[in-house]
Amino acid sequence: MFSVRLLRRTFQIGTKRFLHKLHDHLHKIMRPDDANIVGNVHGGTILKMIEEAGCIIGTRHCNTQTGDRCVAALARVERTDFLHPMFIGEVAHVSAEITYTSKHSVEVQVNVLSENILTGAKKVTNKAALWYVPFSLKNVDKIAEVPPIEYSSPEREEEGKKRYEAQKMERLETKERNGEVINAVTVPERHMKEPYTVGCSQSSLIHLVGPSDCTLLGFVHGGVTMKLMDEVAGIVAARHCKTNIVTASVDAINFHRKIMKGCVITVSGRMTFTSNKSMEIEVFVDADPLVEAEQGKFRAVTAFFTYISLDKDNRPLPVPPLKLEEEEEQKRFEEGKVRYLQNKAKRLADKERHQ
Amino acid sequence: MFSVRLLRRTFQIGTKRFLHKLHDHLHKIMRPDDANIVGNVHGGTILKMIEEAGCIIGTRHCNTQTGDRCVAALARVERTDFLHPMFIGEVAHVSAEITYTSKHSVEVQVNVLSENILTGAKKVTNKAALWYVPFSLKNVDKIAEVPPIEYSSPEREEEGKKRYEAQKMERLETKERNGEVINAVTVPERHMKEPYTVGCSQSSLIHLVGPSDCTLLGFVHGGVTMKLMDEVAGIVAARHCKTNIVTASVDAINFHRKIMKGCVITVSGRMTFTSNKSMEIEVFVDADPLVEAEQGKFRAVTAFFTYISLDKDNRPLPVPPLKLEEEEEQKRFEEGKVRYLQNKAKRLADKERHQ
Amino acid sequence: MFSVRLLRRTFQIGTKRFLHKLHDHLHKIMRPDDANIVGNVHGGTILKMIEEAGCIIGTRHCNTQTGDRCVAALARVERTDFLHPMFIGEVAHVSAEITYTSKHSVEVQVNVLSENILTGAKKVTNKAALWYVPFSLKNVDKIAEVPPIEYSSPEREEEGKKRYEAQKMERLETKERNGEVINAVTVPERHMKEPYTVGCSQSSLIHLVGPSDCTLLGFVHGGVTMKLMDEVAGIVAARHCKTNIVTASVDAINFHRKIMKGCVITVSGRMTFTSNKSMEIEVFVDADPLVEAEQGKFRAVTAFFTYISLDKDNRPLPVPPLKLEEEEEQKRFEEGKVRYLQNKAKRLADKERHQ
Repeated sequence: MFSVRLLRRTFQIGTKRFLHKLHDHLHKIMRPDDANIVGNVHGGTILKMIEEAGCIIGTRHCNTQTGDRCVAALARVERTDFLHPMFIGEVAHVSAEITYTSKHSVEVQVNVLSENILTGAKKVTNKAALWYVPFSLKNVDKIAEVPPIEYSSPEREEEGKKRYEAQKMERLETKERNGEVINAVTVPERHMKEPYTVGCSQSSLIHLVGPSDCTLLGFVHGGVTMKLMDEVAGIVAARHCKTNIVTASVDAINFHRKIMKGCVITVSGRMTFTSNKSMEIEVFVDADPLVEAEQGKFRAVTAFFTYISLDKDNRPLPVPPLKLEEEEEQKRFEEGKVRYLQNKAKRLADKERHQ
Repeated sequence: MFSVRLLRRTFQIGTKRFLHKLHDHLHKIMRPDDANIVGNVHGGTILKMIEEAGCIIGTRHCNTQTGDRCVAALARVERTDFLHPMFIGEVAHVSAEITYTSKHSVEVQVNVLSENILTGAKKVTNKAALWYVPFSLKNVDKIAEVPPIEYSSPEREEEGKKRYEAQKMERLETKERNGEVINAVTVPERHMKEPYTVGCSQSSLIHLVGPSDCTLLGFVHGGVTMKLMDEVAGIVAARHCKTNIVTASVDAINFHRKIMKGCVITVSGRMTFTSNKSMEIEVFVDADPLVEAEQGKFRAVTAFFTYISLDKDNRPLPVPPLKLEEEEEQKRFEEGKVRYLQNKAKRLADKERHQ
Repeated sequence: MFSVRLLRRTFQIGTKRFLHKLHDHLHKIMRPDDANIVGNVHGGTILKMIEEAGCIIGTRHCNTQTGDRCVAALARVERTDFLHPMFIGEVAHVSAEITYTSKHSVEVQVNVLSENILTGAKKVTNKAALWYVPFSLKNVDKIAEVPPIEYSSPEREEEGKKRYEAQKMERLETKERNGEVINAVTVPERHMKEPYTVGCSQSSLIHLVGPSDCTLLGFVHGGVTMKLMDEVAGIVAARHCKTNIVTASVDAINFHRKIMKGCVITVSGRMTFTSNKSMEIEVFVDADPLVEAEQGKFRAVTAFFTYISLDKDNRPLPVPPLKLEEEEEQKRFEEGKVRYLQNKAKRLADKERHQ
């Protein structure tokens, strides 16, 4: 088997342990339940696989030194683009690598490739970066220490440190912003709403956390939460344009608090911005510890999903413009436009750099 | 169990094939995901199994004569009581029998038994009666003819006919009532609501219909819908009393329209009535054919679920009384009280008859 | 990433294509639903993962040459031992390699390793050999040709050929034997049966084939069938000894006919033999094409599962002897004893060879 041949070669360079700790690869056939009616795999299915790979490699790494046993919890996912659609029957390959460690966090880079095993065609569909924090198995509130990794060059370490500092800043910022926004998204009487308004497509779902949603420590896998968020965002998008829609990208997502077993999760989504060919949907996750009510409901996660609308041949369709009715909606639209233009500029800059 | 008695009778008349048409038995080990945190199997899990057994036996029976191939769609479930809780690790036995056929419908009686395979203890947990209507595989809007069954006695046939006439009447009635009620249940800003009010526990979820939710004909299995309904009702009940809650009974449910693949289902629940030891929750299912928007959103199902609250030793706890704020809530409470008293009277009458 | 480093090295030796065709690796965290109450992962969960890995690598290989696109269908699994228990929270690593090809079939060797990502402990839990046959996407009844592989030595090829001939003979034999046995296992009134008799533990379940159970060609994945078989065998074993039981081995399984979408599968199990520390359970799979009834019900698979009973510390417990009541049961017991002694002798011989 593959691993044997590989091991042999690695033995020669004396880094078997290194290899096993820092890289990982998983794959899975895409089934009908992973996709929408026309066969496009849900963005949420892919996000869930990405997070599973990250959680495995992160947890394994954090347990490589003596001391407390711990489980890696997702703290943040950097902005992720969906470069190509994936289809039912294709094999999704997810490979993960640890690229940076700080005292209490681990950065995992994950690449996703779709393979059509009938034609052999392969496409890179996603590149994601995730940050994990290890929690002690003995005390779920205690953060464990992360064993340092070796870098292939000092430059690599320096780059990692920069990414670490940047995400730390951003996490603090959104934490504060989250504090401000407390009121829930209300679902209005949809049939009384005009088409293309925010109220017309606004949607929400509740989910009772089950055992298979949780890690060994009894909190919800970040991937499970992201899959529910993508589900709601997709329904908002479909309600707006009544066509086949797919996830184009997800902005950075911060997971400020763990959601424990026994909670009810409310996931709500509302459209914030439309460009000619894309829609931005803001998604909120609120956790309600049903039985231990003294803890109170809390805002666990917020994020922005971008969707595009596709015709029968998977070509982008124009998106009907969002009809704004309230001042708040106008404000959110302007903020969405800023994010849209920033991302566009960034994409162009990246393109030029690679030419 | 029931099957043996049957076996004997059928053997005598030497119709092994006949036997295969009219009886069926399935069982399944209950898994963690089938239950709540304290290990009680969700009522919705049981309803889904009951419907799967009914759909199989109904579809098989309707295809025993030459003619169009067809799939049985659930039209109605009679009132169902949950007699005993079922737990993770137990085996649920579901046995189904066809007990009456009219020209276009099939009555299936389903019994559910829980078996603790370690101690051997068995308990009857449910007895349900379901009505199915066969739809042609070639034309999803055409209702096929049902082959007649043979009855063990003319009395049996007569009793079946009475049940058939009674449910037909009730279906017509609720169809009309459903027509009246059009406005959706709105989910208010929960945090602004006082505890124990209707608004405080009101909940709703959305679900994008996936391939595994559907029959060969591409419409949602009645059992899938009932499981979602029970999920919402359970969350409403838990939000009201913040304790471990279980399904005690479901009133008769009518399925007026098929929900096709590609719909988004919105399931909303609100508390209508509380007695000392029980809560009644009204649940609405609305279907929204996202892409084929010309069809428009429609109310697909409504039902009443009754829940009870349990302590650590599975003994019933008192339920906090529902705080009524609006006239409409008062009216629904009175109606719920009538249903509660009727069911109580019926239960007492049944008990006396059996003594 | 891992793949890059790997690819680069492989490019140098010019076997990128070889590598990608013939080896594969997948892994998955074990969740509560994958295991029994005490946390032991079900044998059926492992068999399903093994088959998924085999199907991916087999299908990929059969599509590497131009010609008809095809899907690999499982034809046979060789005898598989479960060497160590696997637990919830562990990561199962499944690696697959193509080890032999004939004109119309592919042999895949699959190894399974359990990894405790907290302690780093790893154990080989299974080694399996599977035979696949490719069916054309255009015509589900047409078998495609398999591209030949290169062997590392002529001895390897010769050994593969011997395995191929041996399994071919055995498949023919069981095909005939299957023909004889027609009557289904009936589920008797269990409570009237004496403990430890065959009738007392006999069990069966039915399953309606859903879309996610099937390959692109619309027939059931062999792994899905094996998982159901293990579920029934486990219930039979638990009913017999009322303790925690685990799968110890599965005899070779032949898949004579494909089970298509829309079938109802009946899986029945009965105990055939007990030794001091093990039980053998015979499992039958019958497929019933519900809608296309003219095709008729057929026996799709049969197999023997061996289970052991464990105490709290995972040590084997004595198994209560099977009480035989009928001549047929006596005959099957004797046959089971022969298989038991043969396997024991084979195990001893293998052990000596490795010393």
